[in-house]
Amino acid sequence: MKPYTFENSDALMERAKKVIPGGIYGHQTPLVLTRGAYPSFFARGEGSHIWDVDGNEYIDFMCSYGPIVLGHRHPKVEEAARRQMELGNCFNAPGPVWVELAEYLVSITPLADWAVFAKNGSDVCTWATEVARQATGRPKIAMCSGAYHGTHAWCTPMPGGVTPEDRANVVYFRFNDLESVRRAVEENSGKLAGVIVSPFKHDAGHDSELPVEGFLSGVRKICDDNGIVLILDDVRAGFRLHMGGSGELFGMRPDLTTYCKAIANGYPLAACLGRDSLKQAAQEVFFTGSYFTSAVPIAASLANLKELQASGGIERMRATGEKLRTGLLAQARSAGLEVTYSGPPAIPYMTFKADAGHFDRAKVFCGVCSRSGVYFAPRHNWFISAAHTERDIEQTLNVTEQAFETVRKQFGA
Amino acid sequence: MKPYTFENSDALMERAKKVIPGGIYGHQTPLVLTRGAYPSFFARGEGSHIWDVDGNEYIDFMCSYGPIVLGHRHPKVEEAARRQMELGNCFNAPGPVWVELAEYLVSITPLADWAVFAKNGSDVCTWATEVARQATGRPKIAMCSGAYHGTHAWCTPMPGGVTPEDRANVVYFRFNDLESVRRAVEENSGKLAGVIVSPFKHDAGHDSELPVEGFLSGVRKICDDNGIVLILDDVRAGFRLHMGGSGELFGMRPDLTTYCKAIANGYPLAACLGRDSLKQAAQEVFFTGSYFTSAVPIAASLANLKELQASGGIERMRATGEKLRTGLLAQARSAGLEVTYSGPPAIPYMTFKADAGHFDRAKVFCGVCSRSGVYFAPRHNWFISAAHTERDIEQTLNVTEQAFETVRKQFGA
Repeated sequence: MKPYTFENSDALMERAKKVIPGGIYGHQTPLVLTRGAYPSFFARGEGSHIWDVDGNEYIDFMCSYGPIVLGHRHPKVEEAARRQMELGNCFNAPGPVWVELAEYLVSITPLADWAVFAKNGSDVCTWATEVARQATGRPKIAMCSGAYHGTHAWCTPMPGGVTPEDRANVVYFRFNDLESVRRAVEENSGKLAGVIVSPFKHDAGHDSELPVEGFLSGVRKICDDNGIVLILDDVRAGFRLHMGGSGELFGMRPDLTTYCKAIANGYPLAACLGRDSLKQAAQEVFFTGSYFTSAVPIAASLANLKELQASGGIERMRATGEKLRTGLLAQARSAGLEVTYSGPPAIPYMTFKADAGHFDRAKVFCGVCSRSGVYFAPRHNWFISAAHTERDIEQTLNVTEQAFETVRKQFGA
Repeated sequence: MKPYTFENSDALMERAKKVIPGGIYGHQTPLVLTRGAYPSFFARGEGSHIWDVDGNEYIDFMCSYGPIVLGHRHPKVEEAARRQMELGNCFNAPGPVWVELAEYLVSITPLADWAVFAKNGSDVCTWATEVARQATGRPKIAMCSGAYHGTHAWCTPMPGGVTPEDRANVVYFRFNDLESVRRAVEENSGKLAGVIVSPFKHDAGHDSELPVEGFLSGVRKICDDNGIVLILDDVRAGFRLHMGGSGELFGMRPDLTTYCKAIANGYPLAACLGRDSLKQAAQEVFFTGSYFTSAVPIAASLANLKELQASGGIERMRATGEKLRTGLLAQARSAGLEVTYSGPPAIPYMTFKADAGHFDRAKVFCGVCSRSGVYFAPRHNWFISAAHTERDIEQTLNVTEQAFETVRKQFGA
């Protein structure tokens, strides 16, 4: 098959650069890192497949960086959205689905008594830290250095536009290093309102790291001993690993859990779930937005989560992810290439050991895949959806075999 | 007609309070201020009318607090959204509409060379201040005391969860008081990155105030003289007063303009438009969210703005607003009640002079209206849409006549 080309994407990108700073901002590392190997614009999606504006078809292993969990345009989600659209979306107050989704989330989440809704992962992560401050009357928040909790100034990974005051109340520890958490608490004795942590370490540009035995439960104990609110940032992993929150999978018992991405299969919704002990503080931290109560994304979320649960989507993503991992590791071994395959099966990531942090082999590997119809990103974890089929994995492994071969030829074993 | 009752709303609210802090958060002042006179949940909308979950019908003068500008479920907007939904919404990169909307916005906006998209008004207002910081290398932002620029800690109207450091770089001036702007600049000499201001003063709970001659142009001059970025917060007023930005109407020439609300007739979208001189800085301030590139709201926005322009929506809203004002002022006079009717015709607000800031008469007035099918808010400006008809205004004035009469009976003239 002739490798894909991207004439329409490139023409659109030229137009985009004239009227949008950078043309596209946010998720564009594949474009930037791998010139000429990726499309810039997409035309449509269906299940686990996407088509770019040049008509090239891909098996989608980025799932829009997480949101697509049942597959693009899942009929049950689309039907729920359409039915709500026929009534209306955005009113002076919410629709009944506002209550129904909160009740449903509380019913499937062992550690949550209430929920709030918003639009971005950043919205809920920042708000959760403010609830922790309001509940404790303390100013400081501890986070893992290098972790991503959104674009707000206190945590954005880029320094542009940030002042020192924005970070004055942020202290840092290291994932899987309980001693560093203890130190952060001691050095800020009586000043720490909250600890925010993801269920596993999934910093972009790094191999993922699952929590070691005792780390997350140890963080919980330190929080308990010191009256600190424990926030689980489940924006990236939520509803891909466990229906009741990724804390359930890893034995972590958070006070607040933030969700976005997979919560509504691509419809714009974020949520924070919390315990009764924080309900009053939650009510005292102002939280609103023009579209926070809009009914269409909430209806879509309800349909998405119910279908995910009823159809065993979590288990299916795990099994599909295992097949992909097994296949890729066998191919890498055959090609004589050492790779690191990290993260849980449904949110995997693969790097080449010889790349040692610079991604040269990953860029070639992912570039060959992209131009042959398999969409991975070289510098960001991947996402499996419940729509990926055995045939998708077979087709993918046909492509990756060539991609490993290209890496071997270009860089040696 | 028997006044409306709200059994279903009240039952849903009881359920909501169990699983959501406060039951509903954000826009709920009518509920809180006027117990028993407002519905808590809406079932559907069509044009200028909305129906609550008890089947009560209202002429909607809040328009979802701004977003609904062509009327609920406008056929052209819905068709554009549906057509995009049939292709997909949320991908690994944007769809072609991403470029088309940016080009369109730049084409209708005299002072803009580029656009970025996000989800909340808060997103774009905060980001604009960060772009100003990045462009100038200075830390401080000046805003009107009491103005609303979103829920982020630097500007939220409520103190919950906010630390002193969050406000360390914010300085204040007064709307229509050029001397106070001069003072803010002098007292923070060389440290002011940006001034953020709305096109007219529309603080909740206060009569609106149009800019006095020379204020906005004076602010512009002060910014020019001191190398300060001028940000127009057009989230509330944008696309209700002028298609090219409310600055055009009031003779203000901003460097950055933020939009949300009316930009997409209720579909979740926010935007910031800017000048070429700030394009590089804009590229340097990280800005992303899971749904920022989603195509459905962008397609809806394009259809919404084109229809607003083609159908003369701005002029229609002005004319409708004039009729409402004329009618209400005549009725108030007849009833012997002194009112203040403020704001531009399309974004009006009415208070009772004898209330002197406590809203007792406004609550009774709006409560009677609500229970008779006309939805106003007592403590927040109202919104006219292009869908409001002459008949709507006639029906409204029938109801408001009774409402003035009730106020007169209850409080005296």
